[in-house]
Amino acid sequence: MNVRAGIVVTGTEVLTGTITDRNGPWVAKSLLDLGVDVAHITICGDRPADLTAQLRFLAAEGVDLIVTTGGLGPTADDLTVATVASFAERPLALDTALEAHIADIIARWRRTSGIDSPALAAGIRKQAMVPEGTQAIDPVGTAPGIAIPAAPAKSTPAILILPGPPAELQGMWPAGLATDAVTQALSGRGVYRTQTIRAYRLSEPDLAATLRSAEGQIDDVDQLEITTCLRGGEVEIVTRYAATAQPAYDALAEYLTKHHAAQIFSIDGSTIDDQLAAALSGRSVATAESCTGGLIAARLTDRAGSSEYFLGGIAAYANEVKTETLGVPTELINEHGAVSEQVARAMADGARTVLHTDTAVSTTGIAGPGGGSELKPVGTVCFGIAVAGQPTRTHTVTFPGGRATVRALATTAAFHLLAEALNDVEANLASPRRSVI
Amino acid sequence: MNVRAGIVVTGTEVLTGTITDRNGPWVAKSLLDLGVDVAHITICGDRPADLTAQLRFLAAEGVDLIVTTGGLGPTADDLTVATVASFAERPLALDTALEAHIADIIARWRRTSGIDSPALAAGIRKQAMVPEGTQAIDPVGTAPGIAIPAAPAKSTPAILILPGPPAELQGMWPAGLATDAVTQALSGRGVYRTQTIRAYRLSEPDLAATLRSAEGQIDDVDQLEITTCLRGGEVEIVTRYAATAQPAYDALAEYLTKHHAAQIFSIDGSTIDDQLAAALSGRSVATAESCTGGLIAARLTDRAGSSEYFLGGIAAYANEVKTETLGVPTELINEHGAVSEQVARAMADGARTVLHTDTAVSTTGIAGPGGGSELKPVGTVCFGIAVAGQPTRTHTVTFPGGRATVRALATTAAFHLLAEALNDVEANLASPRRSVI
Repeated sequence: MNVRAGIVVTGTEVLTGTITDRNGPWVAKSLLDLGVDVAHITICGDRPADLTAQLRFLAAEGVDLIVTTGGLGPTADDLTVATVASFAERPLALDTALEAHIADIIARWRRTSGIDSPALAAGIRKQAMVPEGTQAIDPVGTAPGIAIPAAPAKSTPAILILPGPPAELQGMWPAGLATDAVTQALSGRGVYRTQTIRAYRLSEPDLAATLRSAEGQIDDVDQLEITTCLRGGEVEIVTRYAATAQPAYDALAEYLTKHHAAQIFSIDGSTIDDQLAAALSGRSVATAESCTGGLIAARLTDRAGSSEYFLGGIAAYANEVKTETLGVPTELINEHGAVSEQVARAMADGARTVLHTDTAVSTTGIAGPGGGSELKPVGTVCFGIAVAGQPTRTHTVTFPGGRATVRALATTAAFHLLAEALNDVEANLASPRRSVI
Repeated sequence: MNVRAGIVVTGTEVLTGTITDRNGPWVAKSLLDLGVDVAHITICGDRPADLTAQLRFLAAEGVDLIVTTGGLGPTADDLTVATVASFAERPLALDTALEAHIADIIARWRRTSGIDSPALAAGIRKQAMVPEGTQAIDPVGTAPGIAIPAAPAKSTPAILILPGPPAELQGMWPAGLATDAVTQALSGRGVYRTQTIRAYRLSEPDLAATLRSAEGQIDDVDQLEITTCLRGGEVEIVTRYAATAQPAYDALAEYLTKHHAAQIFSIDGSTIDDQLAAALSGRSVATAESCTGGLIAARLTDRAGSSEYFLGGIAAYANEVKTETLGVPTELINEHGAVSEQVARAMADGARTVLHTDTAVSTTGIAGPGGGSELKPVGTVCFGIAVAGQPTRTHTVTFPGGRATVRALATTAAFHLLAEALNDVEANLASPRRSVI
């Protein structure tokens, strides 16, 4: 009954692992949000035979819509349109209006260097070849998309051809959905809801045990499509269900929050970044980072509007920067070592003082691969959380994994620890409120 | 003649775009490095019928090896082993030694919380079910991998089953390759070479035109598998070829470097990060970041050993931090605005002075979405590059895209500008040397 779709990601650079594909997941998520069931994503290189094989496979699997990404560029190895046209048995013809339109676009953004005629003209002509009986989609970059209607007589589903650069693909998505071919393919879709629950410091086996026990206790739990996913120290529980299964989802959400009250920090889809931004509203914050080397500041300022509360940060890698810029007493480093809760506290307090904020977070740790000892192995990170009017808190966590993992996990931990501290302050000031961690 | 492989990535969280798959690209690259031709990567969710369809598709395409990733966990939706076993017509049997081994591992890392017997035991038993006539691969986490020999009579290729967490998969890869099943499947592979050329400030259409013109002028250019890929403002040109095509590759590399001498900065596979680290060797560097908010410091310290030259950085978001901590004169901000080459210069000089380094790089710009004006639109970023004994350089670049793109492109630009300045200094001091940009 559901409308099913397949996604074909093309490009040797994706197939060979040179770049990580961002289009498959984005298109999949966008289709799911529309209530479309994504059955398969396939990735192929620039060999037409492999692309054709994948199109045949998806058509044989009975999908209603295929979305292809990539292979629309001006170069000779960009063969998606020709290959799909041949699969759909639709001859290509030059669309001269489209050709002029693409030439216009290129002329505009090459105004400094001019158009190098014959080679570029060949590329433009190639991009303006459109299969018979299909609809071109206005380019966001220079490559137009194409929507091909389903042809039941040929057993070919509707096909939406989109370019590879994510910004172009995403920009052309609404126009692609609005084409007759895609509108018709999606006309039978159901309505689904998606809810996300997020937990921190909850292990996957513990969650799996809870979900297994929930199966016997909640009616219609089999109507819920539950996906659990561990990332960056957090567990994400994504549930997709038809509107009729709302009572089952409500029961599951209650069951989970009852069993993991201390770990679940979000039941409304909000991320720790959202929650920390809300907690920092009306405040001012500074960072003092050693092992995370700027990652916390970078992640805080990733958000538009963060300049409202983020004033600045100091990446204090060398001990001299810790002492001179942040005012950490040299004796503290000599006595306890740079990686210690004492130094983390002094760094957080120092950042507050030097950068004139009411809140600060600090890290000092051993990201590896070198620098570990028996007492302080690689992965040991000390945190300081300074909030005006409160005693400065410190924490020590030992993270698993290599350098990049330790730094990423420590950054996420800093977000949770800071949000937790701010929520505790709020809870003490006002009515009781659930702690973030 | 080539050995061909297919990769099946399983997991609803990947199929639905909740997480970005890292295993497909990693396995593809690892196989390519071994001279194996990767024809297809397919992604499916937790529906056994979809996984079976993909296995059938790859077998029908004639691949010699299928690598599957994910779906080996203890939860009920982890169905890879059972589904692949059924596809390969090999009944599952409990491996009691493996069961005891997994229980041991879990007991070790759950020492604080104890084993919650019935549910966990069920999960462990599930993970210890092994298809008949296959070889289990010792787990890095808790999930063992499995290697299934090819069965020409059943038209099934060799299948290597690996877990989903990237660290586990990568840790188990050597043992997986060493199994009889995989060794035999890969025995006929050829030897390939891969070379990467990197350029900065080179547009893809310009590169495409050069490659088109090279086709007519270089013998055997069709023996080269050339992939071009734009990322983060750089163009990567990856060429894969058999040893016999070395003269063709050498001619292509010479042709490209002749036509784009000013843009090509690497012909030996080194990244700008590698080159900058080499250029900073024996020096000390500091950062002063406004719009990039810590990204440059974070990227510099991403590299093990960076503490040799990176002393510290200041994320100077608020103007008060620019003036007080970095010593930028208030009048300079009032007169020219915070986003100006004058302020960028003062920030870089200030960082050098405050953090006692011989080198510093600064950014101040408008990452958006707000804050743009006609004169300084969103995407405008000013850079300062201070090197001891040299006049401080400044640059202004207007980057396209949204907030995240502008910040990422500005970070990459800072790496190139700093490496370029350091190479110029070196060139003046010693024998002439090609500029980095």
